[in-house]
Amino acid sequence: MVRKEKAVIVDGLAGGKGQAEVYHVVSEEEMMGHGRLYARVVLKPNSSVGYHQHVGETEPYLILKGKGTFIDNDGSRTEVGPGDVCIIDVGHSHGLENNSDEDLEFMALVYMDEVK
Amino acid sequence: MVRKEKAVIVDGLAGGKGQAEVYHVVSEEEMMGHGRLYARVVLKPNSSVGYHQHVGETEPYLILKGKGTFIDNDGSRTEVGPGDVCIIDVGHSHGLENNSDEDLEFMALVYMDEVK
Repeated sequence: MVRKEKAVIVDGLAGGKGQAEVYHVVSEEEMMGHGRLYARVVLKPNSSVGYHQHVGETEPYLILKGKGTFIDNDGSRTEVGPGDVCIIDVGHSHGLENNSDEDLEFMALVYMDEVK
Repeated sequence: MVRKEKAVIVDGLAGGKGQAEVYHVVSEEEMMGHGRLYARVVLKPNSSVGYHQHVGETEPYLILKGKGTFIDNDGSRTEVGPGDVCIIDVGHSHGLENNSDEDLEFMALVYMDEVK
């Protein structure tokens, strides 16, 4: 079956500022217990994903387009662009800022701790 | 931690023709038992992902760039482009063709049947 991504506009993603367009690839139900979010995210200029913790799960980001600043679990800030993967361990925190004048596009996948 | 995607060149992906660049976001080990592949794939012109079955798992595709032809489990063929999501059920088969002169770029996520 072929269908379109499911677009949702979010103001202040994870407590951040500005606006994000979240394009869901599959629903949480379709992740069959493995995760709770799989989406392409377009973070608008001067917007951010607020710094937030992932208890019992993790969330790698893959940057597709634009420029951003990744805030890691230790508070360190790293400039990121296309092809960069931002990894955190289960239980850790992260954030992402788009302080540029262009869209920052990335893939987000939230999946759970190890299958027991 | 920020790192680069891990690039692997594959000839004849899943028994298909031509060449694909597979950019791994995380390793199978990092998927912690939930899946076995999470990657951005660049399918070169006149190349294909061979028609193949997913036993005990599924694999949605998200088309990012270019034009392709999705072959579904029932053999039907659908033209796809950016923003299209190609879904199959657990146990079903699929394939993807790039019969154009430009790269076809998509996200591939292979994850397992329902967590019991």
